[in-house]
Amino acid sequence: MFETQRNVRPLMSNSKITGTGCYIPTVIKGNDTFLNHQFLNDDGTSFGTDNTLIIDKFKSITGIYERRYAKEELFTSDIAFYAAQNAIETAGVDPEALDYIIVAHNFGDVKKPGGQNDLLPSLSTRVKHSLQITNPNCVAYDILFGCPGWVEGLIQAHAFIKAGMAKKVLVIGAETLSRVIDKSDRDAMIFSDGAGACVVEQTAQGSAGILSHATQTFAKDEAYFLNFSKSFDTTANPETLYMKMQGRKIYEFALNNVPSAMKLALDKSGVGIDAVKKVFIHQANEKMDEAIIKRFYRLFKKAIPENIMPMNIHKFGNSSVATVPTLLDLVLKGAIENHEVKAGDVVLFASVGAGMNINAIVYQF
Amino acid sequence: MFETQRNVRPLMSNSKITGTGCYIPTVIKGNDTFLNHQFLNDDGTSFGTDNTLIIDKFKSITGIYERRYAKEELFTSDIAFYAAQNAIETAGVDPEALDYIIVAHNFGDVKKPGGQNDLLPSLSTRVKHSLQITNPNCVAYDILFGCPGWVEGLIQAHAFIKAGMAKKVLVIGAETLSRVIDKSDRDAMIFSDGAGACVVEQTAQGSAGILSHATQTFAKDEAYFLNFSKSFDTTANPETLYMKMQGRKIYEFALNNVPSAMKLALDKSGVGIDAVKKVFIHQANEKMDEAIIKRFYRLFKKAIPENIMPMNIHKFGNSSVATVPTLLDLVLKGAIENHEVKAGDVVLFASVGAGMNINAIVYQF
Repeated sequence: MFETQRNVRPLMSNSKITGTGCYIPTVIKGNDTFLNHQFLNDDGTSFGTDNTLIIDKFKSITGIYERRYAKEELFTSDIAFYAAQNAIETAGVDPEALDYIIVAHNFGDVKKPGGQNDLLPSLSTRVKHSLQITNPNCVAYDILFGCPGWVEGLIQAHAFIKAGMAKKVLVIGAETLSRVIDKSDRDAMIFSDGAGACVVEQTAQGSAGILSHATQTFAKDEAYFLNFSKSFDTTANPETLYMKMQGRKIYEFALNNVPSAMKLALDKSGVGIDAVKKVFIHQANEKMDEAIIKRFYRLFKKAIPENIMPMNIHKFGNSSVATVPTLLDLVLKGAIENHEVKAGDVVLFASVGAGMNINAIVYQF
Repeated sequence: MFETQRNVRPLMSNSKITGTGCYIPTVIKGNDTFLNHQFLNDDGTSFGTDNTLIIDKFKSITGIYERRYAKEELFTSDIAFYAAQNAIETAGVDPEALDYIIVAHNFGDVKKPGGQNDLLPSLSTRVKHSLQITNPNCVAYDILFGCPGWVEGLIQAHAFIKAGMAKKVLVIGAETLSRVIDKSDRDAMIFSDGAGACVVEQTAQGSAGILSHATQTFAKDEAYFLNFSKSFDTTANPETLYMKMQGRKIYEFALNNVPSAMKLALDKSGVGIDAVKKVFIHQANEKMDEAIIKRFYRLFKKAIPENIMPMNIHKFGNSSVATVPTLLDLVLKGAIENHEVKAGDVVLFASVGAGMNINAIVYQF
């Protein structure tokens, strides 16, 4: 056997977030943006209710009263770069020292609604290019994993660090969902654009950092709960595809499966439920997120602690992979009222989305 | 600190390929397919040479005299599934026991030339769905990493195994490049469709398997050597995008950088150059591959050994992420004349492509 022992050493490493960043798109779209939309049922028939009522009901369920879109000339890889710059600056890391750049997204650069997705080169290559990194040993790749892509990127970074393959990893989640929504679909109101990032670095085993994690993919009956399909508008080109979701099924799926996946991660960590100080959950829908947290605590026969779940969906909507890192960055930088994280605090990151994928990380600051 | 020791154990694992598979698309396209194409320069002017001469020159450089396209009704995720089935059967593994399904591609499901790429849900979710796997702990994700995506997927599988996060991983590379080529571009003749896969499993440290690996991303001047741009045909819709490549620059880049990356991997393994029995290199272009191998051996002041480099580009063209696993599967199953691999043999996998990304694995059977 030729196996060298050079890279062989015990799993002495843990992974610690040393900096976060985000990019908040600048085009603000209030709910009144949708007042003149022609909302349709999935069979193309008129929804038959006044838009004011539709929007009021939407707001009461999702919590969203405005959302952010990126300016037309900015693509997903551009806002990914801005978030990356912000995280690198916060971490104070030399970009040339990065071992990996991981970009999570689900549509590539979408230049205009209905247009082809541009994935060549990968978005991570574009970000590395914009960061002007020369070091060829900084490996740049993209992952597609639905909304939980950024959390999964963090788990992959942890794997590379544990395996002795990396010391510093930049993990980005970025998306411009405003360009893949069907205007005739009420779900168009949920989605938004955004980008968030973190730098994660090797630290000593037994230090704070990632305590445990869990990931699941449900692809039997659930694979197409989120998919790319034609408009509800039967007069539209049936070959132009939009992000479509079976909202009710996803709601039930999430309630039935996310709390147990979060518990799975927490049980692995050995941390008790009372030690959890914050839950950073994918900003999908306020009522759904509240129901998930309620069921999660019910698994431990506990009431929901006060102020456990920071939310920013009200002003930012659901920006897919970008929600968790954006929310984390804002809390760490003191930008979310009544929410702070102190050294030693244990928090949970949790996400759910297309795949259907679910993941959770137990993290100690 | 709450850090549990449950998952902490020394890096005792190595990763071993226990089965390979591929799907050979059934539509055979000889070079004469292109006899009536209107080949243009990148400024839209006529190439001004007889197509017979263009094709003869093309064949003498690339070695390609025919290529395979998938039937219209088959998408990338379908042929990925066929290759996966084949690898699972060869490995004799229970699909429910898989910890990860990794699918490398670069364009998603392309339903027709010029159409939107369908990435939602991810191709790995589609493959898991087609395999009818129920186990939610089998995590399915996609990577975008240019042509080296399958080799990189294997490196990521190795990371998960080393980190104690997986024991059995299915790694697939699949692409339908026939649907992203510009008919007016001579490079259209190079590209093809295909899918290859392997099952990689945890084995004891010190056993055969992955001995070492190296990956590099060159994204400074090289980021857009391969990109998604308009047709050379100035009368075509400029918003319809095709895979475009700066062939001469890529050729020079590959010759300057691939041999040293291969040497980097080999040096890490501690294996001497004379012990290398086969080099499975990305089937990009016969002359380029030969020149890379020549320079690689020159780095060791050695002549190229006979029969070191199995090739199947002649009949299959360049199917991106699918070339290395397809070639490997065919050699392991005795389908490439004068090439076999025996237990104990050390081989190299090497690839280069969009990113620009380069990677290499030193592997012992």
